[in-house]
Amino acid sequence: MSGYGMPAHWQASVKRTFTLAEGRPGTGSSKTPLQLLDGTLTPNGLHFERHHNGVPDIDPSSHELVIHGLVKQPRAFTLESLLRYPLESHIRFIECTGNSAANSQEKPPKLDAGALHGLLSCSEWTGVRLSYLLDEVGLEGRAKWLIAEGADAAALSRSVPVEKALDDAMVALFQNGEAIRPEQGYPMRLLLPGFEGNINVKWLRRLKATTMPAHTKDETSKYSDLMPDGRARQFTLEVGVKSVILRPSPGLVMRGPGFYEISGIAWSGAGSIKRVQVSADGGRTWADAALNAPVLPKALTRFRIPWRWEGQPVTLMSRAIDDRRNVQPSRREWTAQYAPGQPYHYNALQSWAIDTSGKVTNVFV
Amino acid sequence: MSGYGMPAHWQASVKRTFTLAEGRPGTGSSKTPLQLLDGTLTPNGLHFERHHNGVPDIDPSSHELVIHGLVKQPRAFTLESLLRYPLESHIRFIECTGNSAANSQEKPPKLDAGALHGLLSCSEWTGVRLSYLLDEVGLEGRAKWLIAEGADAAALSRSVPVEKALDDAMVALFQNGEAIRPEQGYPMRLLLPGFEGNINVKWLRRLKATTMPAHTKDETSKYSDLMPDGRARQFTLEVGVKSVILRPSPGLVMRGPGFYEISGIAWSGAGSIKRVQVSADGGRTWADAALNAPVLPKALTRFRIPWRWEGQPVTLMSRAIDDRRNVQPSRREWTAQYAPGQPYHYNALQSWAIDTSGKVTNVFV
Repeated sequence: MSGYGMPAHWQASVKRTFTLAEGRPGTGSSKTPLQLLDGTLTPNGLHFERHHNGVPDIDPSSHELVIHGLVKQPRAFTLESLLRYPLESHIRFIECTGNSAANSQEKPPKLDAGALHGLLSCSEWTGVRLSYLLDEVGLEGRAKWLIAEGADAAALSRSVPVEKALDDAMVALFQNGEAIRPEQGYPMRLLLPGFEGNINVKWLRRLKATTMPAHTKDETSKYSDLMPDGRARQFTLEVGVKSVILRPSPGLVMRGPGFYEISGIAWSGAGSIKRVQVSADGGRTWADAALNAPVLPKALTRFRIPWRWEGQPVTLMSRAIDDRRNVQPSRREWTAQYAPGQPYHYNALQSWAIDTSGKVTNVFV
Repeated sequence: MSGYGMPAHWQASVKRTFTLAEGRPGTGSSKTPLQLLDGTLTPNGLHFERHHNGVPDIDPSSHELVIHGLVKQPRAFTLESLLRYPLESHIRFIECTGNSAANSQEKPPKLDAGALHGLLSCSEWTGVRLSYLLDEVGLEGRAKWLIAEGADAAALSRSVPVEKALDDAMVALFQNGEAIRPEQGYPMRLLLPGFEGNINVKWLRRLKATTMPAHTKDETSKYSDLMPDGRARQFTLEVGVKSVILRPSPGLVMRGPGFYEISGIAWSGAGSIKRVQVSADGGRTWADAALNAPVLPKALTRFRIPWRWEGQPVTLMSRAIDDRRNVQPSRREWTAQYAPGQPYHYNALQSWAIDTSGKVTNVFV
């Protein structure tokens, strides 16, 4: 027996794969090995990471969240004081703004599903609804934005629309039952369900109410979308409707013709997944997959459909539709919106080709 | 960044506490520190353990599940073959038959909530519905029981009613997204939602269809309920409706009068939690707590209610009611059913006394 257990040694290859930015210590990302998992939740040890300047080591007893600016009564909240407010638990995904960016290149990168789409994880988050805290400090009517700042060395800062802060935003303290992990913002992070990963500010230490967004480096030089005419869109915060087939997918070899289950995940920043269609002929015909219940808003939804493979070459695709009638775009539709190589908010259809040997590879259709 | 992350070092005290049976290596249990967690899920590293003869180290590529006995076509299923069947994911609790047994003693043990009630955890389990596999082997009509056997050194064996096997029983392969941990039955375990922990056989290697139960050591000398007249009940498999307040609870000190949130968990082997009532006066008056949505059947349900403590001595209690109208019994009602000291299936109301210093202790009301 042990105080805190770990996976079987037979599962040693089930780990996050990471990339570090050369010459910039503490900058990089690690990805969830989606194709080796099943269900809808991500174990905390495999939640993706994206750090801009390392992971701070924060003493929870001295950390404070300050809410100030255009408020009647600025306040500092300790972890202990937050635990006396009403808490809520919600299962929600977080997807990095740059997830799947490799597919925005001209040629399909020969990567597995986790390396392509694994800046995506899903957890049960527990914390205090931000609107309760804004009630306490008395947000002024002319406050339209909150500047959220993290306690990392980058002081990562993002501008949050007040409408979102008063809607389903949360100061999250627990993840899948236990205290948030250091790499997820210990002891507290901002959770803006359905919004791009970067704005879910980790190690949250400050919220300043203002009339205007701050245009920080993290929302100007990064995480803005370059358009074909050379201008850029800012504050495109809600992530699009998206899906990916995980079994089969690259690295998982098909063992001869016969029955298989096609299984994958779908999600949308706008709400709940309504429908996932699967094609085994490169998008000519589609069939509806079953959705694993309960289908929760802004959470990963597992879809599954039985399939008989006859051993011929095929192209598998999935297409998600959410309850706001958003439809996952084709790669052509997605690409047409942006300047070449624009890497953010990629949510086009993912196609996997299977050859007669059962090998699966990433292809653009 | 890391391949597989761990909690913050500040959380080092959040661990399973374990008891080993003297002179019987590999026998014992470890408990989930419920009072230090929040939400409804248990991280895999903190899922409770109960082992009768150690944890086997099983090569997943050579493990097989054999289904035989009263079937038309016996079969052996490998992990790989099971992954080609339709999988399902469900959030379900597992509670050890002996959970909370310390409260069946004459005097209230001075333990914290985890040490008292922590043979209880909740996960998202993913696997194959057992009824699909029984369809494949062609269960005969006269088969009324399945003898389930684990691949541990104890060859732990339990008799499962066929009705349950054809209902919501599952051969579970994944837990909270990743492969089941060794201590939870890697590479596969039987999951019988709502049934006592011991019958959810880990390291599952054999299911034999029979006309009669096997009366194994694990359902005769153990896990049977001694009655006041000296006879014992067997196969009382469904766990009762139950709840416990976790915040406040022993070990968590109240810091002076003021507003607090009372928070805890409720569950029932019979279905969904319908209602949780909380008393702050030792059971004289009760108020309804809010239930965190979605309320799922045979899953832990988090309840919460705001409360103002004036600093006086109080006795907190919670009482759960499920959607089959089962009501959690008082300690007196529970005790009257059994011989003195009968330790299994304890589900009586838990009372916590708070003194004027804010110290919380276990009391019998």
